[in-house]
Amino acid sequence: MRAIIIANGDCDNPKQLAALFRADDFVIAVDGGARHCETLSAYPDLLIGDFDSLDKPILKHFVADDVKMLCYPRHKDQIDLELAVDHAIAEGATEIAIITAMGGRWDMTLANLFLLTQEKYAMFELYLTDTVQRGQVIRAGSAVTLTVKAGGRFSLIPLLGDATGISANDLEYPLANHTLSLGSTKGLSNRTLADAITIELQQGLVYACYEIGD
Amino acid sequence: MRAIIIANGDCDNPKQLAALFRADDFVIAVDGGARHCETLSAYPDLLIGDFDSLDKPILKHFVADDVKMLCYPRHKDQIDLELAVDHAIAEGATEIAIITAMGGRWDMTLANLFLLTQEKYAMFELYLTDTVQRGQVIRAGSAVTLTVKAGGRFSLIPLLGDATGISANDLEYPLANHTLSLGSTKGLSNRTLADAITIELQQGLVYACYEIGD
Repeated sequence: MRAIIIANGDCDNPKQLAALFRADDFVIAVDGGARHCETLSAYPDLLIGDFDSLDKPILKHFVADDVKMLCYPRHKDQIDLELAVDHAIAEGATEIAIITAMGGRWDMTLANLFLLTQEKYAMFELYLTDTVQRGQVIRAGSAVTLTVKAGGRFSLIPLLGDATGISANDLEYPLANHTLSLGSTKGLSNRTLADAITIELQQGLVYACYEIGD
Repeated sequence: MRAIIIANGDCDNPKQLAALFRADDFVIAVDGGARHCETLSAYPDLLIGDFDSLDKPILKHFVADDVKMLCYPRHKDQIDLELAVDHAIAEGATEIAIITAMGGRWDMTLANLFLLTQEKYAMFELYLTDTVQRGQVIRAGSAVTLTVKAGGRFSLIPLLGDATGISANDLEYPLANHTLSLGSTKGLSNRTLADAITIELQQGLVYACYEIGD
């Protein structure tokens, strides 16, 4: 099952984003992210959060509509997005697409990105996406095949100090047992030469950002 | 000397952002970031980039105005923002404020953030800022005092695996020899109780995002 999680960042290109949804997606709206549901014509199966960042009228609308809600205390150890991903997994999702996760507060944008690094999510297909690009974590010891847009931008950003033993073909600048150090921007703005790219990583943790096809 | 670097991200609240500039700032516009100069009423001392993301008419305008330009080849190992920070330092800047660094491409947003982690910048006051919030790196073995907005949000995000020995007073949830692990969101959305916060960090690397005063 695929879950789509609507986070509380900016919602650019809502029309194209709305086209992502399939009838059988399990849709979770996260706190203030619920404000995007109307623009996206998305009906949430579940609303999660402490609801400190959702306008009251929108909240009332969902209450009147009998949408299932999980209300958490404001002071808690996890951000609402983490609770949402955990619930998606508990509902049986193996693929989890997070949308509208960037923009607004920088700390939340960064936290949303770093959430993907948590070891408990290693077994799931978890990614941030919009209509143009996708971001996901590549872990040490893995070989991951990504579906990309041929000719699109393809960037690798090391997250946990040096990332070593990076290999990937079908790129404008192919990588063979390559090393990227933290803060290095050498992995940015490569180009894909095919519509699927396999990346191997021996050590470290890498964030892959890449353009997706139509 | 303070340098302000205008990066190629989104430019929200240009009026308030324009108020940041002082007459004696050394202003660098980075490639497509030069498009923000007019809205910000900012006149760059230097334009840096490969100019692949700047509209031709804007480029021509700066050429006609005889603005100093450093044009780099498109295929290079650094992103334009790194070249800009290096030049600011070479010009004698000890404080470097980067604005309009987020939004648009996720890989560039992340790369801009991670650029701050580079060891060569450890001796400089280097931060990302807008009119509401500021982001900077706290390094192991340091005690840094940040000027914040009393009552504002204050978040710490570990960047390099576990960050240990974090201490800070004058927070709603004070930290005493605290540990934050990668992907953990426990350091998010604390609140400041004073207008200056001193953070100590023993091991790791932490990104501090905090609200700034008016």
